[in-house]
Amino acid sequence: MKTYRFLLAGLGNIGRNFLEIVCDKEVMLRERYGVQLICVAVTDSSGSVLNTDGIDMRAVVAAKKHKQPITELPGGIAGMDAVAALAASAVDVVFDSTPVDLKTGGIGLELTRNALVAGKHLVTANKGPLALAFQELAALSDLTDLSKPGLRFSGAVGGAMPTINVGRSDLAAAHIRRIEAVLNGTTQMILEMMANGSGYDEAIREAIDAGIAETDPSLDVEGWDAANKLVILANAVLRQATTLADVSVTGINKLRADEVRAVRMLGERMSLLATAEWVEDHYKLTVAPTALPESHPFARLAGQAMAIRYETDIYGTQTLITHEEGPVGSAAAMLRDFLDIVRNN
Amino acid sequence: MKTYRFLLAGLGNIGRNFLEIVCDKEVMLRERYGVQLICVAVTDSSGSVLNTDGIDMRAVVAAKKHKQPITELPGGIAGMDAVAALAASAVDVVFDSTPVDLKTGGIGLELTRNALVAGKHLVTANKGPLALAFQELAALSDLTDLSKPGLRFSGAVGGAMPTINVGRSDLAAAHIRRIEAVLNGTTQMILEMMANGSGYDEAIREAIDAGIAETDPSLDVEGWDAANKLVILANAVLRQATTLADVSVTGINKLRADEVRAVRMLGERMSLLATAEWVEDHYKLTVAPTALPESHPFARLAGQAMAIRYETDIYGTQTLITHEEGPVGSAAAMLRDFLDIVRNN
Repeated sequence: MKTYRFLLAGLGNIGRNFLEIVCDKEVMLRERYGVQLICVAVTDSSGSVLNTDGIDMRAVVAAKKHKQPITELPGGIAGMDAVAALAASAVDVVFDSTPVDLKTGGIGLELTRNALVAGKHLVTANKGPLALAFQELAALSDLTDLSKPGLRFSGAVGGAMPTINVGRSDLAAAHIRRIEAVLNGTTQMILEMMANGSGYDEAIREAIDAGIAETDPSLDVEGWDAANKLVILANAVLRQATTLADVSVTGINKLRADEVRAVRMLGERMSLLATAEWVEDHYKLTVAPTALPESHPFARLAGQAMAIRYETDIYGTQTLITHEEGPVGSAAAMLRDFLDIVRNN
Repeated sequence: MKTYRFLLAGLGNIGRNFLEIVCDKEVMLRERYGVQLICVAVTDSSGSVLNTDGIDMRAVVAAKKHKQPITELPGGIAGMDAVAALAASAVDVVFDSTPVDLKTGGIGLELTRNALVAGKHLVTANKGPLALAFQELAALSDLTDLSKPGLRFSGAVGGAMPTINVGRSDLAAAHIRRIEAVLNGTTQMILEMMANGSGYDEAIREAIDAGIAETDPSLDVEGWDAANKLVILANAVLRQATTLADVSVTGINKLRADEVRAVRMLGERMSLLATAEWVEDHYKLTVAPTALPESHPFARLAGQAMAIRYETDIYGTQTLITHEEGPVGSAAAMLRDFLDIVRNN
């Protein structure tokens, strides 16, 4: 039995679900994988809870559900952020589910950097640090040197869909000729509502009311969420050093509802498609609304489903489709990433 | 740079393609993965070629293409089989692409057993040994004890489709509630021809003429190929000790063409579906022709495409679809399996 002490940063939907999964799967983790996870630090925007003997994870979840400050729990320290909590804790692995900040990387970037430099494994569901600083973080981790700490992020690009793992491992040694992907479930829902007769503003409002879109949906509808996921894919799977400036981005916010309906009348489906295409000596990266013909494998995706399709030289064409509701899949992805690190160390 | 000496048993379509891929990817294997593969033994039904300094892999491929006995190549030994070649060679890893024998396991089973007992990693594209002796082979390998040699077989269930890896790694710690899979491309083609108006015998003949079906198509049409793949999935992914006797098997050979066409007229699609369903405390395993409603994700699979769908507790529903022609995908799967062993050792 191997014991791993962990810090979890961020107690939003993903972080809370992660703690619940770790509790629910305790027996299976021990019996099937021979590991035990002990939570010694959790943090949110209010502060941290530290306990070297192990924090009661169910109590943390209950506090968040009842909107009680976690800093009132035993070991709570108001105002201590994740970076300070890392410095104050003896941990083996750090889980980052802090809020996504695509401009600066937020506390997640500093936490990720510090954890890896300190020799701690880092598992993240947070796109921000990876989209902004992939090459720097990869250089600090086992992605470039197997003797360095593990860095895993499969939940950051498509939730539970094994987008990254299939691209890096199952298509090992392939030349990937083309990627097509639907990586943003919110725009899928909004476009579906528009195809069914809603106006753009009406569809947005419905999506916000249903809890599918953020109150400020601009990251989704302007294409930045999908573009940042494509940046991570390009770096991690296509091995092309890439930043957001390398992606041509068009959102769905300039589409008129009658355009979307006209496409539907032709039997086609409008989707916000992320594409990587090998052209001569590099990948051309694009995010744009695209009318998919009825025969396209993504033309009939249900609801908020996401999908990716890899065209390769030696593995044919491999397509993945995920149907998942809410943040459980992304939380579970952090657990599989941890188990992959265990397997490799 | 790590150097791995290998024995390749079986020089049919998969084995030949594997040698070609290893040659074509030599630079990438060195630069991206830091490994070099040296072929020190190959075998087919005529005998073996042994050379501790490395066999000219292109010459082996050329000999097979021109139907020249490999035993006439330098180092050739007529009549030496794969098991004897293993005993006579100093290798790190064995690749098995010997012919599938679902009754006895054939030479592949003896080779796999001997390789693992001798501490050699074993990568196979051969369903036979796994379907017949999964638990025994797993006990000899890193599937049960990480200090034992690696056993990988991702090409044995669905070619390049990462069926096994996604089930074991990407869905780690999940409870899988249900698997649905189309694992036999030949019956997909035959059923499609029947739906389009061919009689059963006519469809079989066309499939044989097109090189899609074997001259004796009984393993495919009677459902045994799909059933044996389901046995491997049940053992490897569902972790239920399973043999063929545990699977309820119905082939497509008792379907009438008018039944298949009637299903098509309703907008549905007849497929030979493999299913695993959690019932109380175990998985119920079935292979049977099934009319898939138009809304089913497998109702519109093209040509010989294969697919699998995992319904889980924490990863939502994950669907994989593969489009691949010929044996290249299965050959490539042996390479990714090897690289996975490298990564874990």
